Amino acid sequence: MNNFEFYAPTYFAFGKDQEEKAGSLIKRFGGHKVLIHYGGGSVVRSGLLERVKKSLETEDIPYVELGGVLPNPRSGLVYEGIKLCRKEQIDFILAVGGGSTIDSAKAIAAGTIYDGDFWDFYEGKRIEQALPIGTVLTIAAAGSEGSPDSVITKEEGMLKRGASGDAIRPKFSILNPALTQTLSRYQTACGISDIVAHLYERYLTNTKEVEVTDRLIEALIMTMVYEGPRVIEDPNNYEARANIMWAGMMAHNNCCGVGRSQDWTSHGIEHELSAEYDCAHGAGLAVVMPAVFTYTMSHDIARFAQIAVRVWNIPMNEAEPEQTAKAGIEALRQFLVSIGMPRNFEELGAKKEDIPKLAHTACYGGGGDGFMRGFTTLSKEDVEHIYELML
Amino acid sequence: MNNFEFYAPTYFAFGKDQEEKAGSLIKRFGGHKVLIHYGGGSVVRSGLLERVKKSLETEDIPYVELGGVLPNPRSGLVYEGIKLCRKEQIDFILAVGGGSTIDSAKAIAAGTIYDGDFWDFYEGKRIEQALPIGTVLTIAAAGSEGSPDSVITKEEGMLKRGASGDAIRPKFSILNPALTQTLSRYQTACGISDIVAHLYERYLTNTKEVEVTDRLIEALIMTMVYEGPRVIEDPNNYEARANIMWAGMMAHNNCCGVGRSQDWTSHGIEHELSAEYDCAHGAGLAVVMPAVFTYTMSHDIARFAQIAVRVWNIPMNEAEPEQTAKAGIEALRQFLVSIGMPRNFEELGAKKEDIPKLAHTACYGGGGDGFMRGFTTLSKEDVEHIYELML
Repeated sequence: MNNFEFYAPTYFAFGKDQEEKAGSLIKRFGGHKVLIHYGGGSVVRSGLLERVKKSLETEDIPYVELGGVLPNPRSGLVYEGIKLCRKEQIDFILAVGGGSTIDSAKAIAAGTIYDGDFWDFYEGKRIEQALPIGTVLTIAAAGSEGSPDSVITKEEGMLKRGASGDAIRPKFSILNPALTQTLSRYQTACGISDIVAHLYERYLTNTKEVEVTDRLIEALIMTMVYEGPRVIEDPNNYEARANIMWAGMMAHNNCCGVGRSQDWTSHGIEHELSAEYDCAHGAGLAVVMPAVFTYTMSHDIARFAQIAVRVWNIPMNEAEPEQTAKAGIEALRQFLVSIGMPRNFEELGAKKEDIPKLAHTACYGGGGDGFMRGFTTLSKEDVEHIYELML
Repeated sequence: MNNFEFYAPTYFAFGKDQEEKAGSLIKRFGGHKVLIHYGGGSVVRSGLLERVKKSLETEDIPYVELGGVLPNPRSGLVYEGIKLCRKEQIDFILAVGGGSTIDSAKAIAAGTIYDGDFWDFYEGKRIEQALPIGTVLTIAAAGSEGSPDSVITKEEGMLKRGASGDAIRPKFSILNPALTQTLSRYQTACGISDIVAHLYERYLTNTKEVEVTDRLIEALIMTMVYEGPRVIEDPNNYEARANIMWAGMMAHNNCCGVGRSQDWTSHGIEHELSAEYDCAHGAGLAVVMPAVFTYTMSHDIARFAQIAVRVWNIPMNEAEPEQTAKAGIEALRQFLVSIGMPRNFEELGAKKEDIPKLAHTACYGGGGDGFMRGFTTLSKEDVEHIYELML
């Protein structure tokens, strides 16, 4: 196991009606004037935004609002948010929504107290300071509610890139599984796919002797395999949604990924798809993962065979372990399809003729040097071959 | 799943040589004058105490020392520590040692800034304030390095009781697995037994639909089942010790126990043994757990069968699930014995004739009302029967 540091000081209020605590939690974590940041209609339609505002009013906390966050959140709204926060002297940002809204809030939080262009952070500069953030989560997916990460799409060139730093880890996150019951089956499944991807990206490691994190990751994937079909069958299943919601946080706050190298190739390859076609990130990942894993499997057959046996109940084929590994990847694909995820470029709305461009941006965009590095090192040609496996 | 709050803001520095960071971490978390609290000879003999002191000196942090913590730490030294902290105007306590030392430090931290007798906290008063604490951990066992809990034995009557409160969760904990390599096989096994107990106590729940925490707990037990024999075979196996050390923290910081009722009957029944005979807590738990589980199994056969199948690879006996459940408990007992743990009263040094007294103290001591409540409710007679199963 590698040396590591782990620091995850987010306060979680989990369960029914917890959004009523938004105001008191903002007070506890030092907020005096708040930007409430959110996306589109569902937060408004469901009455959630009103309940949250009421909670702030009860605590006499003044706020301004900025809605309009889109899935695959854009840099334009971040610039607008930064301007607004400076003008209004905001000292706390409350994100009400899913990963896109939280990631947009994180970008605004870092950008508001930074002299340069906030995009610097998304080109590799570490975030050292930011306004404090709280979240009221409405979808189990991105894990942004407990993570130090944010992904934003720059409209100029449609570059989708990530930034990181302990300063943007939320001070508190309110996780009420009932808030996710209004999601469509498709949105719910996209979230499950994203969570599963966060787990596979951590599982694919070159660090040896990491039994504890292997086992924890497997535990969380098995939870998704059990709860996923239950929630797709009955979107009102609170218990299934609760289990998925805690799993989604645990999958990405990194307690299960410490001390080991991680992959993130699938995320990188997917980001080009959701940036280009504006598809849901989780849907893109469902198409990308089996292709990436099939292409890189030979790098460590034993690792793919281990997850096949432990998670997917594939019997170990000692004579031909690559058959076991392959069967595990196929089981993952079948699981994702079974909950309603697309299986190829066509179902995703992606185009074969774009492959050279997609691979080029993945490897050279945003200051890239022509390679994607993770579990294996992939050249632009490798990435093209991987996209071709998705046809 | 029940509603819950989870807040675990401990900073972990994990890996080789991390104790060198003690001074800089104390500074980061606001310490100006430190009490270094430790136990017996091994911390001194190994040179660890000197290295830690040097780290404080490098950062110009003044300190005083208080050694002498015993396993099953006593109230007498806590009173001494409180007096010393007040006299020296200490504002940070650094525990260098195992769970006993950390728990003693936590009691001192809470007691120093409390007007009354610190023992109030161990009779049920919630700890709301305490001096900040840091730890340098030397054994993977108690999980106190990441938990809000402390257990102290009051010398008057040899009452062993626990206290709790977010204020005594360490600000930072340094986890260097190499520091545990000097432990004897017996001490190491006692730690493993304690960790496994923390997991079983959380597993035995009356809350339904808790797949995510079930799976996480199982993952950590499976880690102990794999790594335990490896470290007993080769105490210098750094990798096995690293996996056990992170598992020990994860087992008890409660990320795997949220949203569900827990048991803690085995701990309560064991505390009488280590208070009375001064045996190692983990050794006591190894004798207590199979007895408690055998006695309470019929309360929820399905739960014991589930862990038997998932963790201990017992085939499910659909016709007679209690056979599966029983086989799982027997597998646990065999595992504990295989790593060198005692299997009964005699091997533990406990006496049959003390059983009525032990049961009485367990049920009535420290303000008890005659019952132990957890997974099931046990009367004094039940507890006597459980002790008899250990003969």
